[in-house]
Amino acid sequence: MTLGELAKCLDAEIEGDADYRISGVGSLQGAGPDEISFLGSPKYRRYLSTTQAGAVILNRQDVEFYSGRCLIVRDPYLGFARATSVLCPQTPLAPFVAPSASIHARATVPQSCSIGAHAIIEEGVRLGEGCAVGAGVWIGRNAALGDHSDVHANVSIYEGTRIGSACTVYAGAVIGANGFGFTRDSEKWVPIPQLGGVVIGDKVSIGANTTIDRGSLDDTVIESGVILDNQIHIAHNVHIGENTAMAGCVAVAGSTHIGKRCTFGGRAGVLDHLVIADDVHITATSLVTHSIHRQGVYSSVLPLSENRAWKKNAARMKSLDDYIRRIKMLEKKIDVLFNGGEQ
Amino acid sequence: MTLGELAKCLDAEIEGDADYRISGVGSLQGAGPDEISFLGSPKYRRYLSTTQAGAVILNRQDVEFYSGRCLIVRDPYLGFARATSVLCPQTPLAPFVAPSASIHARATVPQSCSIGAHAIIEEGVRLGEGCAVGAGVWIGRNAALGDHSDVHANVSIYEGTRIGSACTVYAGAVIGANGFGFTRDSEKWVPIPQLGGVVIGDKVSIGANTTIDRGSLDDTVIESGVILDNQIHIAHNVHIGENTAMAGCVAVAGSTHIGKRCTFGGRAGVLDHLVIADDVHITATSLVTHSIHRQGVYSSVLPLSENRAWKKNAARMKSLDDYIRRIKMLEKKIDVLFNGGEQ
Amino acid sequence: MTLGELAKCLDAEIEGDADYRISGVGSLQGAGPDEISFLGSPKYRRYLSTTQAGAVILNRQDVEFYSGRCLIVRDPYLGFARATSVLCPQTPLAPFVAPSASIHARATVPQSCSIGAHAIIEEGVRLGEGCAVGAGVWIGRNAALGDHSDVHANVSIYEGTRIGSACTVYAGAVIGANGFGFTRDSEKWVPIPQLGGVVIGDKVSIGANTTIDRGSLDDTVIESGVILDNQIHIAHNVHIGENTAMAGCVAVAGSTHIGKRCTFGGRAGVLDHLVIADDVHITATSLVTHSIHRQGVYSSVLPLSENRAWKKNAARMKSLDDYIRRIKMLEKKIDVLFNGGEQ
Repeated sequence: MTLGELAKCLDAEIEGDADYRISGVGSLQGAGPDEISFLGSPKYRRYLSTTQAGAVILNRQDVEFYSGRCLIVRDPYLGFARATSVLCPQTPLAPFVAPSASIHARATVPQSCSIGAHAIIEEGVRLGEGCAVGAGVWIGRNAALGDHSDVHANVSIYEGTRIGSACTVYAGAVIGANGFGFTRDSEKWVPIPQLGGVVIGDKVSIGANTTIDRGSLDDTVIESGVILDNQIHIAHNVHIGENTAMAGCVAVAGSTHIGKRCTFGGRAGVLDHLVIADDVHITATSLVTHSIHRQGVYSSVLPLSENRAWKKNAARMKSLDDYIRRIKMLEKKIDVLFNGGEQ
Repeated sequence: MTLGELAKCLDAEIEGDADYRISGVGSLQGAGPDEISFLGSPKYRRYLSTTQAGAVILNRQDVEFYSGRCLIVRDPYLGFARATSVLCPQTPLAPFVAPSASIHARATVPQSCSIGAHAIIEEGVRLGEGCAVGAGVWIGRNAALGDHSDVHANVSIYEGTRIGSACTVYAGAVIGANGFGFTRDSEKWVPIPQLGGVVIGDKVSIGANTTIDRGSLDDTVIESGVILDNQIHIAHNVHIGENTAMAGCVAVAGSTHIGKRCTFGGRAGVLDHLVIADDVHITATSLVTHSIHRQGVYSSVLPLSENRAWKKNAARMKSLDDYIRRIKMLEKKIDVLFNGGEQ
Repeated sequence: MTLGELAKCLDAEIEGDADYRISGVGSLQGAGPDEISFLGSPKYRRYLSTTQAGAVILNRQDVEFYSGRCLIVRDPYLGFARATSVLCPQTPLAPFVAPSASIHARATVPQSCSIGAHAIIEEGVRLGEGCAVGAGVWIGRNAALGDHSDVHANVSIYEGTRIGSACTVYAGAVIGANGFGFTRDSEKWVPIPQLGGVVIGDKVSIGANTTIDRGSLDDTVIESGVILDNQIHIAHNVHIGENTAMAGCVAVAGSTHIGKRCTFGGRAGVLDHLVIADDVHITATSLVTHSIHRQGVYSSVLPLSENRAWKKNAARMKSLDDYIRRIKMLEKKIDVLFNGGEQ
């Protein structure tokens, strides 16, 4: 493919020889003369002088730092994603059913699906067209997948779970286990029935070893376009709005309702029964302890310090209330000195 | 079943027609006229006016907010759990052994058990009566399960692990992997043998993708009635007392001994070699850095703020010790002004 | 084996009968007269008076607290590790291939390997000599393992992953899933191709349910001698230097480069695109928010308090910046009183 043709696909402005041929993609450090790379952040400008890439996708501000062939776009990441899909199209798995897979006679598995070795598909499961089920996956009774959804190795999907189309579930994820609902009967814990399910929209990505519990009465809901990284924990009856993104190890407690287009940094947490508005952004590791009704960025982490300094400061934090009272006392005394304490 | 019969099972006071027939359970929003629902928290009172439920389980304080049929109990959650077990009894899996399961000739698997597809049961394993082993589960040599314990899909149980009766292990959990015990030999890490095992009592619930490591010399012990949510990490030689509960993503470091009836909020952490008394409650995300000898509630999280405010406050925290010193200096100076600094 | 022979293996000084026979190892509380134990920390000195162990491995400072037979070494943990390897040598699994394993005709599996039940080894996979692949493991196309590496039950290894020799991967771990790379196209998330792989050195230990993502363009790299505990999350393009150790539930965000011999306490986190020098130590739960160029110990956790005290202090933290301003105002006023505000 020529650089000119690629520019058209990316809606990019071209600088340099439009007839130059590109056949693949690579990083600035790794790409060769027949590959295109991209500059995703000004941090990596230093690699521009030494890259062997045949061309670079970058944005207008970075053009002046590069003298080679380039495609100028507004979002180089997006440009690179598109270039990759054009230059290295993913060939869908050829349909097949591994002989060792266990598929129940009353499961619906279209011929366009590929089913890996030792996968288990129970009674009443319905797969859409072109689904790929990985090795060792278990899909429980009456669960359903939409068209072209991929479920990777060793995933467990409990009975009745409904997943939309064009979703990806990475290895080891568990969807639809009972929520953590217990009540005490004197000292002992009695499980509260978890009768709801899990309903997942379209184009949802679910990371490796992430867990999404089924609802207690109503369903746990993940709307379309949500992207969840690895090792995320979504408790029962949580509702996550469209196109919200969560980085690794985020945990959301039961019955919390999260809006659309929110982002959660890695290891962020959210308490139970809260309501989070649309377009709320929680920075990494922060804990959301109350509902958030206004869009914005929210945080709650202690800044990192050298351990010696941290020890001193942390000790003060344990008595902070006392010190603040002493500030107020000082203010009163100063007030007396300045104007006799009269208001 | 009539409302009157159900009231007897629940030890509940009845309001309305005792002969009204109930055949199922549901949420306030979802239940129909032949179903019973419950009001678990005053937060949901607003649903009482529109619910289609045939009857509602609630406590005395909420009676005045509902004019329909109801069963009055002290703990509506518990009442609902009991109603569900009566109205929707879980039918135990019919005994079966999937043809694709691999069961060693010298494993003990009573005929009352159900063994899922591709499950692997190694030499010397002993299952109790009525156990259910899910698809793709691996149970290592000489491990043992008590009666009526359920192990869900893709769980891994290492050799020698002992699990009591009526336990549930959710999908993807790993029990009995080596503890993280290493010592340095100059720069390199040398593993310390992990010769202990894991001993789990009765009626223990272990969440999806939770990991419980084997002890180094003695055993890791989870006593009866303990409930663990998803993605919890229990390190080697930890001991957890009866009826303690941990919400999602809690992590407990090695050799810590936790008492009975404790609760840990989601994402809480506990350092190693600590002792936590009975009836200690740790709020979500808090880190326990020292032993706790007295029952009570303990916390250590920074409150959530808008990012702009957080930045300012966080910067101050890094110099808190310095500011506290300045408060003390001010106090001395004020003291000089008020009384010449004499004591 | 006699105590004298064992002393030689451990390079230990002996106290007591060198001809005494030892045949196993155990804890101070559990060892019998034919077993050797060790004192790893002064905390456990109290067990020395009652232990039934035939001998104890300890260091010079602890000799005076024990009157029985002992082996004196510099590092009792290391001594015990060596004693165990001598007295209880791990017998490698006899080579075998479970009949239910699925091994592709074009995979390389030496006869010295052991392949567990229902394991799946795809086309082009290359295993080294003496590898052990556990039950239900999936190894994707063209992945490679060095000699004598062990992969435990239900692990998922994506295509092209390269793992060195003498590595251990515990159950449920997932290696080589796509990194969490997305960019927005108006409201929707578009995946950025993850074309890199995962490269893992020799003698690396990877804990249960840990996840290591593949790189986006270049590889995610774990150097030799690294030890990772359970439920760790390593994002795409992270680089971890030799002999670095991470305790349970640590999370490292994308493209961060971590040096050699670092240690991370449990639940520690590291933001993306940072550089951490060699010999940096992060205490449990701390979040690394900026690059660290100097070796040392770093922390960022709030100290644990009783909930009542915590509430008061936490409320103050939300207004800390305001209070610090008030300290500064007080200082100015005091300055006026003392010397008229002149500098």
